[in-house]
Amino acid sequence: MRLSRYFLPTLKEAPADAQIVSHQLMLRAGLIRQEAAGIYAWLPLGLRVLRRIEQIVREEQERAGSVELLMPTLQLADLWRESGRYDAYGPEMLRIKDRHERELLYGPTNEEMITDIFRAYVKSYKSLPLNLFHIQWKFRDERRPRFGVMRGREFLMKDAYSFDLDEASARKAYNRMFVAYLNTFARMGLKAVPMRADTGPIGGDLSHEFIVLADTGESQVFCDRKLVEMPAPGGDVDWNDLQSIVDERIALYAATEEMHEAARFEAETDEGDRLTARGIEVGHIFYFGTKYSTPMKARVQGPDGRDADVHMGSYGVGVSRLLGAIIEASHDASGIIWPDAVAPFDVVVINLRASDEGVCNACEDAVNRLEALGKEVLYDDTDERPGGKFATADLIGIPWQLTIGPKGVAEGVVELKRRATGDKLSVPLDEAIARLTA
Amino acid sequence: MRLSRYFLPTLKEAPADAQIVSHQLMLRAGLIRQEAAGIYAWLPLGLRVLRRIEQIVREEQERAGSVELLMPTLQLADLWRESGRYDAYGPEMLRIKDRHERELLYGPTNEEMITDIFRAYVKSYKSLPLNLFHIQWKFRDERRPRFGVMRGREFLMKDAYSFDLDEASARKAYNRMFVAYLNTFARMGLKAVPMRADTGPIGGDLSHEFIVLADTGESQVFCDRKLVEMPAPGGDVDWNDLQSIVDERIALYAATEEMHEAARFEAETDEGDRLTARGIEVGHIFYFGTKYSTPMKARVQGPDGRDADVHMGSYGVGVSRLLGAIIEASHDASGIIWPDAVAPFDVVVINLRASDEGVCNACEDAVNRLEALGKEVLYDDTDERPGGKFATADLIGIPWQLTIGPKGVAEGVVELKRRATGDKLSVPLDEAIARLTA
Repeated sequence: MRLSRYFLPTLKEAPADAQIVSHQLMLRAGLIRQEAAGIYAWLPLGLRVLRRIEQIVREEQERAGSVELLMPTLQLADLWRESGRYDAYGPEMLRIKDRHERELLYGPTNEEMITDIFRAYVKSYKSLPLNLFHIQWKFRDERRPRFGVMRGREFLMKDAYSFDLDEASARKAYNRMFVAYLNTFARMGLKAVPMRADTGPIGGDLSHEFIVLADTGESQVFCDRKLVEMPAPGGDVDWNDLQSIVDERIALYAATEEMHEAARFEAETDEGDRLTARGIEVGHIFYFGTKYSTPMKARVQGPDGRDADVHMGSYGVGVSRLLGAIIEASHDASGIIWPDAVAPFDVVVINLRASDEGVCNACEDAVNRLEALGKEVLYDDTDERPGGKFATADLIGIPWQLTIGPKGVAEGVVELKRRATGDKLSVPLDEAIARLTA
Repeated sequence: MRLSRYFLPTLKEAPADAQIVSHQLMLRAGLIRQEAAGIYAWLPLGLRVLRRIEQIVREEQERAGSVELLMPTLQLADLWRESGRYDAYGPEMLRIKDRHERELLYGPTNEEMITDIFRAYVKSYKSLPLNLFHIQWKFRDERRPRFGVMRGREFLMKDAYSFDLDEASARKAYNRMFVAYLNTFARMGLKAVPMRADTGPIGGDLSHEFIVLADTGESQVFCDRKLVEMPAPGGDVDWNDLQSIVDERIALYAATEEMHEAARFEAETDEGDRLTARGIEVGHIFYFGTKYSTPMKARVQGPDGRDADVHMGSYGVGVSRLLGAIIEASHDASGIIWPDAVAPFDVVVINLRASDEGVCNACEDAVNRLEALGKEVLYDDTDERPGGKFATADLIGIPWQLTIGPKGVAEGVVELKRRATGDKLSVPLDEAIARLTA
């Protein structure tokens, strides 16, 4: 993609109301633009990151056996009356009347709708276990939206829902999502720690939050350092028996402020392993049994011929919020440092003299070769000065910068810089490409 | 994908209120489920088709130089007051108040918001031409939603917006979208005919609708048969000079009922070429000059140093509506016939005896080999009877059916059926795979 034909409106200064670094950097790097309080447009560079994050989430859901569908943003109020949540949900729910005065709402979550879909079609235990997910825009009317996409009102969420005949099978579904989440966040370069959580308005018996550690996180967390250091299990596991993987982790102390018990923390952790840190919630999983299936009559016939209410769980990932969380965890004074797996482009090729035909030819050759190797390339072909180009490249955080100028062309070298470390190398293009594709 | 682990709730009968064949088939084939009047959930099979259509639209937009971003579904009412459309739009606009009584609306289209984004960042003619598109859910509160996704309320639309310094340049942008649309619909196996159109509530000077011809179409159309038979220009054109491609087409008579003039039709077409048919609108493009830029003060500095209001156009494709249009144009008594380019799976492998180990092994071998060749495979591994499996395969319209049973395993052959023609072949698996991947 040629920068001269792209739409990348970077800003010198972040607006004064952007309080946290991820919000400031997302505005400055031209990732988002605020359209209303807590409502953002995703500018081209931001949308690219959003799509990459979404795709990692999707792949790990599918690997864990979940099937994708897509529910609408608007829902009937009557559906929420069946579960009793229409009145219980409070002012965070955006309530709407259509032209015929029918009551709708902009879905803040989808337990009711998915339960309705399930009961319409599934009648037998033979169709279980079933796990369905979607990635859709949600709306929660936060009283005071802030921190950019971290606490927005219109936000992109992945929510999965599991259906099982009994609690034992539902726990297996829970475990599959638990492991899928460990893998999902690890692929994005994040340290996300599962912490036993309160079930809140979703309700239920068992719940874990997944918390990204970042100095600028919204909440205080307490956990055993060994849990943070434990690697993600990866996809090559026995998906039918994950209990030991889950047990190994939940045996280690980890709690958010609300769930923290200082005495237990001291008793259950070694002194050197006691970690007190700031964190950002990026995922939340719930097992809630028959909380929705009983009032909504979502039943299947069991092997004994009797009808039974299905056991359900729900599993959320804040897809748009993850952009903020990743930036909070990975930035420096010059800008964003995208982990390779979610970067909007793999490499930016910087042309130091766009008026020089030899430099342009060398740049285009580099771009073509990288693209032929499957790399996503942003080509800064503008006539801005080198200093401005370097500042933009650092700000937008693309993992590799490949700089070509008249001196390099004369000497047969390019400059390759790794954004994360600042390490620079002057090498022939062949070698730069070999390093980039290693 | 194993059907036993998938979620494909097909129905024997379509609900009585589904009046047109595409709506009936979408419900019966488990593509969608109605959640409220004109509001649908996309079940897994339907979502797969939606994503393939979306991707073709995206690729052709990008080929024509448009850059993707994503605007939110909710917009501020005040933005629409700037253009004067907040009061003008009427009851089709879903108007919403948030918890602080701020007026929002669920976007039916995005001219105002994109103009606001443009004016915030673009100040010079040097940044032009610019074309931005997004693919996002929209809401139009139809008084009487019907015909399934063809006239829904919450629907997925691709809308692009062009910005140019003057009318001559804006016409070039219009031509690029005109050609992109010809290519887009042709890739989906559709005959979509451009017809001069009324500009309606978008406003403006120049407009074309793209109409798919289908016997069950919603409206009457009149056109020169030569226009229908003209092939799409393809991507290998001079994108800076498309006037002759556009002129060649708009010289031929084509009009919807509202724009039709019988006398002109007779005068301008040869008798044998006069086609009167039914059609479905799938795209609509507009050039409207400074209709929005003037009231909203979207100006750039021209080469002469003076500020000028930008010339704009907007370009819509009904992404979710296209599923209905494709089915209307491509089905038979047994069900849907998906064109290869938008099919949810490339091939369904039908296991005629799931209790037979030899048959299962042969099926799994076929599935693995097809997937290794990049094909998307649905594997019917259920224990349903052959008749039911064939009926489902025909209903859901996957282009190829590969059937394996005990007799075939004994004889070393599989049966390969092309859904569109019904042609069947009994051949060794190697040959079936060769034909499938030809």
